[in-house]
Amino acid sequence: MELLVDHHCHGVVRRDLDRAGFEARLTEADRPAPGTTLFDSSLGDALRRLCFPLLDLAPTATPEAYLERRVELGHAAVGRRLLHAAGLAAMLVDTGYTPEPLTSPAELGEAAGAAAYEVVRLEAVAEELATAGGSAASFAAALRAALAEAAGRPGTTAFKSVAAYRVGLGLGPERPSDAEVVAAAGRWLAAGGGRLADETLHRFLAFAALDTGLPLQFHTGLGDRDVDLRTCDPLLLAPWLRAAEATGVPVLLLHCYPFQRHAGYLAQVFPTVHMDLGLATHNVGARAAAVLAEALELCPYGKFLYSSDGFALPELHLLGAALFREVAGADLARRTTENAHRVYPAVGGRGPGR
Amino acid sequence: MELLVDHHCHGVVRRDLDRAGFEARLTEADRPAPGTTLFDSSLGDALRRLCFPLLDLAPTATPEAYLERRVELGHAAVGRRLLHAAGLAAMLVDTGYTPEPLTSPAELGEAAGAAAYEVVRLEAVAEELATAGGSAASFAAALRAALAEAAGRPGTTAFKSVAAYRVGLGLGPERPSDAEVVAAAGRWLAAGGGRLADETLHRFLAFAALDTGLPLQFHTGLGDRDVDLRTCDPLLLAPWLRAAEATGVPVLLLHCYPFQRHAGYLAQVFPTVHMDLGLATHNVGARAAAVLAEALELCPYGKFLYSSDGFALPELHLLGAALFREVAGADLARRTTENAHRVYPAVGGRGPGR
Amino acid sequence: MELLVDHHCHGVVRRDLDRAGFEARLTEADRPAPGTTLFDSSLGDALRRLCFPLLDLAPTATPEAYLERRVELGHAAVGRRLLHAAGLAAMLVDTGYTPEPLTSPAELGEAAGAAAYEVVRLEAVAEELATAGGSAASFAAALRAALAEAAGRPGTTAFKSVAAYRVGLGLGPERPSDAEVVAAAGRWLAAGGGRLADETLHRFLAFAALDTGLPLQFHTGLGDRDVDLRTCDPLLLAPWLRAAEATGVPVLLLHCYPFQRHAGYLAQVFPTVHMDLGLATHNVGARAAAVLAEALELCPYGKFLYSSDGFALPELHLLGAALFREVAGADLARRTTENAHRVYPAVGGRGPGR
Repeated sequence: MELLVDHHCHGVVRRDLDRAGFEARLTEADRPAPGTTLFDSSLGDALRRLCFPLLDLAPTATPEAYLERRVELGHAAVGRRLLHAAGLAAMLVDTGYTPEPLTSPAELGEAAGAAAYEVVRLEAVAEELATAGGSAASFAAALRAALAEAAGRPGTTAFKSVAAYRVGLGLGPERPSDAEVVAAAGRWLAAGGGRLADETLHRFLAFAALDTGLPLQFHTGLGDRDVDLRTCDPLLLAPWLRAAEATGVPVLLLHCYPFQRHAGYLAQVFPTVHMDLGLATHNVGARAAAVLAEALELCPYGKFLYSSDGFALPELHLLGAALFREVAGADLARRTTENAHRVYPAVGGRGPGR
Repeated sequence: MELLVDHHCHGVVRRDLDRAGFEARLTEADRPAPGTTLFDSSLGDALRRLCFPLLDLAPTATPEAYLERRVELGHAAVGRRLLHAAGLAAMLVDTGYTPEPLTSPAELGEAAGAAAYEVVRLEAVAEELATAGGSAASFAAALRAALAEAAGRPGTTAFKSVAAYRVGLGLGPERPSDAEVVAAAGRWLAAGGGRLADETLHRFLAFAALDTGLPLQFHTGLGDRDVDLRTCDPLLLAPWLRAAEATGVPVLLLHCYPFQRHAGYLAQVFPTVHMDLGLATHNVGARAAAVLAEALELCPYGKFLYSSDGFALPELHLLGAALFREVAGADLARRTTENAHRVYPAVGGRGPGR
Repeated sequence: MELLVDHHCHGVVRRDLDRAGFEARLTEADRPAPGTTLFDSSLGDALRRLCFPLLDLAPTATPEAYLERRVELGHAAVGRRLLHAAGLAAMLVDTGYTPEPLTSPAELGEAAGAAAYEVVRLEAVAEELATAGGSAASFAAALRAALAEAAGRPGTTAFKSVAAYRVGLGLGPERPSDAEVVAAAGRWLAAGGGRLADETLHRFLAFAALDTGLPLQFHTGLGDRDVDLRTCDPLLLAPWLRAAEATGVPVLLLHCYPFQRHAGYLAQVFPTVHMDLGLATHNVGARAAAVLAEALELCPYGKFLYSSDGFALPELHLLGAALFREVAGADLARRTTENAHRVYPAVGGRGPGR
């Protein structure tokens, strides 16, 4: 089996879950509709087929039986089984979203038998500075110093922007001036800091990340019910991508669904742009082949990476990898690993397939 | 054969049609281009394959032969043959659009051998009030009373909004204030009433419909040449859907094409949101399987309903059902009927498959 | 083999190319990303399969071997081989974009063994008038005279607008008044003329083209890295199409990808609107069948035409034709030729299949 580099995922929960807790984390919905279940879906079908047997159940077992078996084994053992079965050489773990305690990158990698690296979320860094009581005048310098520090930590391989969730992807193409950053930071801090949602500051963060030289990941496309999916169309990012290109720093468009053709176009025409189908692959289940085929209509094979965007449930890390491996075939799977090693030289020590 | 609940359709014409009259009602085009015919299309191919034999003709017969045979049998007999062949347990009939006399819900159900229910179009109710000479000051109360009266009539199962056609789906998330409704109604009535196209009033109608507790259907996606298809993207409705959710009233996104993936996302993340592929299914013919597969990438199976959106020609009611049954398979077909019974308890007396 | 009418293409380069020069012209990217190649893509796979053998190489040969073989044969012989293999009855050649010297329509047709016609780019005509020193006051009359002259030249079969590239497809539905044209031309000429990008003037050009009675082609969808793909959605053109319909002049939506479903809708509901999948067909390679199927969900068969949009490399003219022939089948291929003869009566002398 060709090992994969999962270049964007999250930790998993550190406790056993009941059915409601499990379903709440299964898709982008925070709960099923009354009288229905999220197990009855493309994702649910894939879960029964690929995960149930890994916990020694037939695909025809009930959700209740699966959740009982999960508790019987315990979350730690379940995580080890599923993450190991994902067949990963390395995992790049976004540590910036933890609505409850999740496994650390080291713990996740240990459970998976894979090397673990960290993806640092820009907005988390900025929001910590605000919490620590920085001033508007010093914000730009403090942010740059914090990114430099993060970039220098062993294991940090990339930054990530969630501008899509906060202000949409229509970032302007100009680096904001110092005065603009001070003014925007002033407004934000005067309002008490907290959840950052200011186009000038997200744009500043994105350019500042490029200056570290580390690859920059962008959330695009699919998200939860709070997102305005129309403003997550990666095409909106084109002006910024054009401006960012001179730095030569790789940019990674994550998820992309249902805009995978738009992302494929950007990956074709912009040398620094790459894409993946994380989150989408496990959500669409048996349709993973169709969605991948649309992405690869224009995306050159050298620009496509693998990720799961698995979050909270190790089932999602497994499903992403298992479905991708099925539909991509060995050649493309190997290519995505080679591509990850080229984009993230810090992950370079491990050759593909080892 | 699994009987279906067609949860959104229209009556059929009460007269025989010549070829021009037939083609004008076949698709969303009001006429074919010179030198071409709408029979030569995906829809036309499906019509030849599935409808011609029901009128005792081979699929290779000419359109002229089909139209002659239609006249020979007479529109009433044609309607009975085609509607019966659709295999319907129940039909929910939108009575709000009648550019010429169409069969009533009772007549349509009688011809189909199905139970018949009514879907009341919000804009038709409002426009009748304007015609009846109501004042701006009394409009809100009169509208609420009219909706309550309609909701209380035996057979009324849902309301429907055509805001998509009139102002687009970008309805705001706030219930308009009384003063806003009075002002908007004043402008509309001062201009003579007639075709309603005012965002405040469409939004008011939609919230007022929720207050009756009946499910609310929205036209989304595909329509005729007058529609601005971009403003029919169901994603535009997300802010309103978020606001409407607290009522717990089911919302049904109709048609959705070519935005079926967008609708599937909304159906996944919003517990009250459901979807169908009415109108699209018969228009795309042999591609019905592909379009359905895209919808079900994210839409949970418990949120998908069946409708034909058949209008004027009973061929369209038949094609919707026959194509859906072919591509959905028996399990999904049964589920859509169960889903319809859950969404529309008034239709609840008949179990699926009866 | 059914001969095709390639109703929109360009000339090919008049010199031998090295690998960088070849890759720069292969896709909409102007260069590959470091460490990658545009040969490794859906387009590259199609190129190996369909073009390598035409130059006596196995599909498994290296890109280097292909480029060596290309130089060995010489660009003229390569062009003759590939263009002949495309199996074309006629080529309609856009002469308005020549970043370097390209073959003339006559030369291209000679190399292909096909009749050659010219497509005149509206913006090139306008920009020549500006270069020639016309005044704002006389611009409208001069432009009309120039279009009439162009339309009267033997071989001119259509006009083409690149408004999509310059101002987007959101053209207003009103013919601009004389005063508006004078004002807009005044601003443009005062700024030194050059690259036209003014909504009023693009709209004026489009209406003026209709007045000649020749079919009008619009670039829509896919383009290079300078395009804002969102503003190339053909749905944006709907208001203008509605206004243009009264003239009865055929309008051709070119390329359309990834908006082929949107274009199919427009082709269904507007009698004068036609579409093709030029440029997209060769870019998506093995996915040509899937993209074509989406277009034909709504587009009536009588409204679909064939084009390659081949530019600079004769490989692209060949790939478009070969892939289209494979996926469309003989019946649809014949229809596209019939459709081209109906839309372009000047090409009418040659029956399909000759």
